[in-house]
Amino acid sequence: MNKIILQYLEKPELSSPILIEGLPGVGNVGKLAAEHLIEELCAKKFLEIYSYHFPPQVLVEDGGVVRLVSNEMYYHKMPKGDLIILVGDYQGLTPEGQYELSSAILDIAEGYGVKELYTLGGYGTGNVIEKCRVIGATTHPDLVEKMQKYNVEFPRGEPNTGIVGASGLLLGLGKLRGMEGVCLMGETSGYFVDPKAAQAVLEVLQNILGIKLDFSRLEMRAAQIDKITSQLQRIEDEIKEEHKREDLPYIG
Amino acid sequence: MNKIILQYLEKPELSSPILIEGLPGVGNVGKLAAEHLIEELCAKKFLEIYSYHFPPQVLVEDGGVVRLVSNEMYYHKMPKGDLIILVGDYQGLTPEGQYELSSAILDIAEGYGVKELYTLGGYGTGNVIEKCRVIGATTHPDLVEKMQKYNVEFPRGEPNTGIVGASGLLLGLGKLRGMEGVCLMGETSGYFVDPKAAQAVLEVLQNILGIKLDFSRLEMRAAQIDKITSQLQRIEDEIKEEHKREDLPYIG
Amino acid sequence: MNKIILQYLEKPELSSPILIEGLPGVGNVGKLAAEHLIEELCAKKFLEIYSYHFPPQVLVEDGGVVRLVSNEMYYHKMPKGDLIILVGDYQGLTPEGQYELSSAILDIAEGYGVKELYTLGGYGTGNVIEKCRVIGATTHPDLVEKMQKYNVEFPRGEPNTGIVGASGLLLGLGKLRGMEGVCLMGETSGYFVDPKAAQAVLEVLQNILGIKLDFSRLEMRAAQIDKITSQLQRIEDEIKEEHKREDLPYIG
Amino acid sequence: MNKIILQYLEKPELSSPILIEGLPGVGNVGKLAAEHLIEELCAKKFLEIYSYHFPPQVLVEDGGVVRLVSNEMYYHKMPKGDLIILVGDYQGLTPEGQYELSSAILDIAEGYGVKELYTLGGYGTGNVIEKCRVIGATTHPDLVEKMQKYNVEFPRGEPNTGIVGASGLLLGLGKLRGMEGVCLMGETSGYFVDPKAAQAVLEVLQNILGIKLDFSRLEMRAAQIDKITSQLQRIEDEIKEEHKREDLPYIG
Repeated sequence: MNKIILQYLEKPELSSPILIEGLPGVGNVGKLAAEHLIEELCAKKFLEIYSYHFPPQVLVEDGGVVRLVSNEMYYHKMPKGDLIILVGDYQGLTPEGQYELSSAILDIAEGYGVKELYTLGGYGTGNVIEKCRVIGATTHPDLVEKMQKYNVEFPRGEPNTGIVGASGLLLGLGKLRGMEGVCLMGETSGYFVDPKAAQAVLEVLQNILGIKLDFSRLEMRAAQIDKITSQLQRIEDEIKEEHKREDLPYIG
Repeated sequence: MNKIILQYLEKPELSSPILIEGLPGVGNVGKLAAEHLIEELCAKKFLEIYSYHFPPQVLVEDGGVVRLVSNEMYYHKMPKGDLIILVGDYQGLTPEGQYELSSAILDIAEGYGVKELYTLGGYGTGNVIEKCRVIGATTHPDLVEKMQKYNVEFPRGEPNTGIVGASGLLLGLGKLRGMEGVCLMGETSGYFVDPKAAQAVLEVLQNILGIKLDFSRLEMRAAQIDKITSQLQRIEDEIKEEHKREDLPYIG
Repeated sequence: MNKIILQYLEKPELSSPILIEGLPGVGNVGKLAAEHLIEELCAKKFLEIYSYHFPPQVLVEDGGVVRLVSNEMYYHKMPKGDLIILVGDYQGLTPEGQYELSSAILDIAEGYGVKELYTLGGYGTGNVIEKCRVIGATTHPDLVEKMQKYNVEFPRGEPNTGIVGASGLLLGLGKLRGMEGVCLMGETSGYFVDPKAAQAVLEVLQNILGIKLDFSRLEMRAAQIDKITSQLQRIEDEIKEEHKREDLPYIG
Repeated sequence: MNKIILQYLEKPELSSPILIEGLPGVGNVGKLAAEHLIEELCAKKFLEIYSYHFPPQVLVEDGGVVRLVSNEMYYHKMPKGDLIILVGDYQGLTPEGQYELSSAILDIAEGYGVKELYTLGGYGTGNVIEKCRVIGATTHPDLVEKMQKYNVEFPRGEPNTGIVGASGLLLGLGKLRGMEGVCLMGETSGYFVDPKAAQAVLEVLQNILGIKLDFSRLEMRAAQIDKITSQLQRIEDEIKEEHKREDLPYIG
């Protein structure tokens, strides 16, 4: 039984494409980044991936129409080499599902001649981030040097838990197939969806790819998130203030 | 190894049948509705579905005879188009089991030429329901319009978690096969088995199908549930009253 | 990949054998009963069943030699019809594993011409049992009548959760293959290994099979368990007494 | 779909090799021991084993290069019979994964003509260990006698839970293939990584294999662990002392 269902909308001819992955994860950094890239480049969807490894769920879109949860591939043609961008609603639910999905994605990528891939994600620190670094990990040592030129940092011992999920597996399994890969992780507290970290990751990626992205939409989303978090902060502060007042001795 | 066992009691000839699903779920609304439909139409069982994705369990019926847990399909012949009704003891236990079972059910439905399906369920609000709305979700935009004529509501952003389980998957996977589907969800608190919500769903469905159902049995069950819940309410109130009295100061 | 490994020690020729199952479960009643039957009849082991559905574990027997956890089949030749007795260390760990193992066991049984089976187990009541009833469940209505003659009881609505695990599945899946089966459940508190309930089950089974068993070993084990539980009871009582004394007011 | 990926770096010719396993487990005793053996013998890696049964994870090594989690096989040629040493980052995550991986490892071992295997592990007692015993378990009774000559102990009823995981399964499944196996378990509290227990296990193994190992590196690691644990002990003592002082009555 085939547990992965591929639904091609189109079979584009692509010239030495690069695979870029952005699936849900810490701070949704990778997903935000990849979705922004798709919007800005007006990339075109060519493949829907359904799988028994996703939750048994449909999403109901405004208007009342359902959509089975999926991953999707988009393409964008560029002079120097085309792009395949992978986004989606979920990652595989089980370890085995993760491996099967990443393998299937690499099969597809290989079929298009992909030799190079970038996986995008967040690096959760648990702290509020002032200046968002982009942390890297690569399949090959020479890519480390190359990435450092783009201000990607490789701090010793970070991330010390490794990289879990598709962003890690696509590199690990891709390496076994001879692909070169880089994981770009934007630092994030991990407590909120983090458009700033997504922007930091894309600022690196646009230099690597030699493109120029407009970030106004991401900045708007970041401003919204900032507003929500500062409102939450204010409410919290008020509650604390309230408590202090209640603790004051009664002076008659 | 075949993890789904089909036991045909009969292989009926059906003319452009519609599939109706009502498996256990929130408030057991779908199951109640589908079982009521079967009883009122005197629909005939033609298929038992056993599966490794169900619990490893037999039920003991009165009289001491066991029955392996299963899903079942019934048919009912009608002038305008026959019905296949799916009911059962359980849904698949795992996400993968859910996908395999829904796929198998669609295989069977496709074999009978099903092009249209209705999945019945509850929409749990967590609140007591005064007037039970029927919320809809469909595979195609034109079905939304059609359903609105039958008083099915499509409130923006509801259900915001999508639809989990067979009621969602049959639509989602059916859509990939070109089937048209509607999910009818009766609003329910979700705290009790809810025959009223089942009736609300069937009142919509009978108009869609052009049939006329007798609801006295469901109304009787609803009255029983009402009696139980109001008894529980009375007990709860008495306990509260008791506590209040105990809290009164002793006046000697 | 074959997830069930059959290791035949012997391939006996058996004449219309009856399958008797006693695997671990509530109060270990079924396992105790089947093991006692094997000992008393000096039944002979002919098959070891290993499976990926069991825990990844070896047991270390006295003397320091390991044994992979397994199920085992024994046979015993009798004038009226031979016996196959199934015992083991574990049941399958997952629902799917339970189904696969029960199916495999029925395949083996069918290969030997088994048409009749008895599954032995405990029926946990959560209460101390004064007089242990044997509750039954069968695949066919006429077996209910037959079993009532052997003092097997079929109380309406019991067990209301059905029968979970091998004792249930072998009946349920066996019924689909046209086998006749009975589950004999000895009432037990479920808090301890219960040799008395095992004896009650075997007292019924010996009459059904037309054999005469010596129960002295089971009675000895029951006496041991009684001793332990009454010691535990005494300790508990002493602790309560102690507390009462401590609660007494100091009278100087 | 093949859930185990074998990546051969070399296909060495080995003469009646012995398999030695040391995967992560209680106190990481087996892994520490096998890694020390590899370092001291300068054993050579010839095989990387990747699997869908491991976590979906890459590790990031210093320098920023990723490595998919794996098990690895090393070989070392010796006059009396070569060695294959199995180490790794993880054991299989599920019971089924454990069985599949152990089977695959035995397939590889059998291909090289392995007839004898040693699995290394820890035996967690929950207590601080003064003098670390090495507890044994074997596939065959005559191996018990042989091991006792090397000061391996076989205390009656220990380990009473059997041996769970690869160290147990390789013996249990190996025995079914006619292999002879011994599990050597170093006693450990189980609270810390335990290089002392690893050394105790290796002191037995070196005598069995007729080799002489240098333990200075393991002793250094043991000293480091001792330092950490005694620091933790001191901090704990200070906290207790602090509490005592706070509990002293104020004498003005």
